[in-house]
Amino acid sequence: MVRWDDLSSAELTVLETVFWSSGISRADLAQHCGFSRSKSNAAVAALLERGMLDETGPQASSGGRRPETLLLSSSMGVLAAISLGASSLDVALFAPDMSELAYHAEPIEVRDGPGIVLPRVREILRDLRKRCNIRSEQVMGIGMGVPGPVEFGSGLLVAPPIMPGWDGFSIREYLREEYQAPAFIDNDVNAMAMGELWRLHRDLPNFIVVKIGTGIGCGIVCNGMIYRGSNGSAGDVGHICVDPAGARCHCGNQGCVEIMAAGPAIARMATEAARAGESGQLAQILAANGVITPEDVGQASRGGDVAANAIIKLSGRLIGQMLASAVNFFNPSHVFIGGGISHIGPLFLAAIRQSVYQRSLPLSTRHLEILYAPLGDRAGVIGCAAMALQETMRLRGVLA
Amino acid sequence: MVRWDDLSSAELTVLETVFWSSGISRADLAQHCGFSRSKSNAAVAALLERGMLDETGPQASSGGRRPETLLLSSSMGVLAAISLGASSLDVALFAPDMSELAYHAEPIEVRDGPGIVLPRVREILRDLRKRCNIRSEQVMGIGMGVPGPVEFGSGLLVAPPIMPGWDGFSIREYLREEYQAPAFIDNDVNAMAMGELWRLHRDLPNFIVVKIGTGIGCGIVCNGMIYRGSNGSAGDVGHICVDPAGARCHCGNQGCVEIMAAGPAIARMATEAARAGESGQLAQILAANGVITPEDVGQASRGGDVAANAIIKLSGRLIGQMLASAVNFFNPSHVFIGGGISHIGPLFLAAIRQSVYQRSLPLSTRHLEILYAPLGDRAGVIGCAAMALQETMRLRGVLA
Repeated sequence: MVRWDDLSSAELTVLETVFWSSGISRADLAQHCGFSRSKSNAAVAALLERGMLDETGPQASSGGRRPETLLLSSSMGVLAAISLGASSLDVALFAPDMSELAYHAEPIEVRDGPGIVLPRVREILRDLRKRCNIRSEQVMGIGMGVPGPVEFGSGLLVAPPIMPGWDGFSIREYLREEYQAPAFIDNDVNAMAMGELWRLHRDLPNFIVVKIGTGIGCGIVCNGMIYRGSNGSAGDVGHICVDPAGARCHCGNQGCVEIMAAGPAIARMATEAARAGESGQLAQILAANGVITPEDVGQASRGGDVAANAIIKLSGRLIGQMLASAVNFFNPSHVFIGGGISHIGPLFLAAIRQSVYQRSLPLSTRHLEILYAPLGDRAGVIGCAAMALQETMRLRGVLA
Repeated sequence: MVRWDDLSSAELTVLETVFWSSGISRADLAQHCGFSRSKSNAAVAALLERGMLDETGPQASSGGRRPETLLLSSSMGVLAAISLGASSLDVALFAPDMSELAYHAEPIEVRDGPGIVLPRVREILRDLRKRCNIRSEQVMGIGMGVPGPVEFGSGLLVAPPIMPGWDGFSIREYLREEYQAPAFIDNDVNAMAMGELWRLHRDLPNFIVVKIGTGIGCGIVCNGMIYRGSNGSAGDVGHICVDPAGARCHCGNQGCVEIMAAGPAIARMATEAARAGESGQLAQILAANGVITPEDVGQASRGGDVAANAIIKLSGRLIGQMLASAVNFFNPSHVFIGGGISHIGPLFLAAIRQSVYQRSLPLSTRHLEILYAPLGDRAGVIGCAAMALQETMRLRGVLA
């Protein structure tokens, strides 16, 4: 095990830089830290000695002395990442250099409550550790994303609308039975945003990540940090109104973007179109399966079904209208779109883009890019691992 | 003149703490800085010697040795603050301890362009200096707020909708003809937010200030700093849609909150009500003056006029609907309402509050306070002075 105590301020800067760079040459490291090569190398030598850094073989170089890559060392331990969605569970183990050691995903119902979900999480973690021959003491930090509002300091869920049995339940205490490592719980979309922030090496200071699935939520990166708001509910955009005369939402208001445009709304609109005889293809699916899923709508759309296309475009337009408010308010450089519904088809992203560009001010959209979340399905677990690493290092006084 | 060079890190911390505290005792200073009393007193002694701090007479004390108050010294110079609105100009001089030395306000038309407005600014500044017997070389920093989008780094306005003649005009260069001091230009609402941030001693890290006048804009404070977004257009909330079927805005879209609820909308609705015979009082004003101003509507409302009340409530409800989006997205602890229209009557704030609480998630509004901006009409100039002081100190390496 590595020694965490009494790191010099130069060593701390080096560790933080290596963390955010995810692999860096000695030359780049010195430059990023603003250190002389000798000062940087002295700190690197101390950290190699402590077992906190590893140096790996030569990278491709443009000439001269071949650079080697500095990474956070696997001697520090292993990161456990748990990304819980409304109906999915992704669990993974990562090395401190953020390479994936093991991964498992399966469907789950978060509504079943912690008594059913968490024992399954524990089992999967044990399986993954076994696969990699890792003992529970080797886990240095645990990061978990959950589909509900979290008070980040305590790690407790606060009145989560789709997780009734979890209100006030301490996931941390549950995990503590098997792991000494600190556990950090955050909203699933904040975890996705953390994943993208780490991937981007913090080069983009202000962006948002939107998750579109059963619900709609958004993670905010402000000045290179996850922004959680004054109560931890920043980014709860699902109940922004996009039509004052729209459908009634479970929150009591009318026309919330979530009730009008998320996965269930797409399925509902498709069912109505099938029943109204607007689409032979959707009617066929309904007759065969009894239900229509958003995936069915996506497939029908890709096959050229007019009704499916119209539904996807309407959903994208409404989400774009909500995002236009966020863009006008926050002026991010990038909006990354992720979540289960985001890949329902190319019309979806096109409709979102058109709607945002139409409804936002020219200055806000001049350099705005609206893209699929580059980490895709892995954004959640990668973000959980990055959060676990960052917060563990912060807890040990390594990061500010 | 004071010496700015070679300040120690303890001296920098003390200066920054005194700036944000706006007057602090030695005991509180040491505590805020996390210094021992002797370390803090050594830094204070050095700064008194440099002429950067002043120590004033005893404050009321709870007993023991009588505390004295440390302030930024007037030897540092004078701050010039210029707050330009669509139709108003406020100019003031402040001491570094943020006490007001001189103030002048007058109506002006920003549309007349820099060739008319800026010479007037220069004249007023000269008059104010004369009144206080201050030479132009004594001005240490200039802060100016303008009613349009600003690229903060360059200080240039970017395609300001209501300031056509100002696009790309360098206010900085104009001011440089008379002043050696650095000038900082920002959006008027950011300046108001900076004023409130200074007043609050940075105790509230996340809040927004909304200015409601001819237009609607908002200043954002995030983690104790003004947040300007990736292009400087953060807080441009005037064109957030509150009714997809609403009136056509000059931006090309329908139902923007600005066209539906700002000052001109209130005047337009009142004129329509007068013509439709819905209000004898408003009809009388229209007949007498040929126009109805928002102030007329406010007065009619305070007199119990039903039509005026309905107009004010509708405006407040629509602004609240827009703010609910901002609250759901940003989860601020406070929303401060300012600008010329904000005091149109108590119904206005009540309608805003009701609409925000109804349309925002419970977690976002649990501790949310919606209040009039405490600095009121002076928020603009105070914010410009605080910005000038902060940025000048930053430029000289005193603040991070």
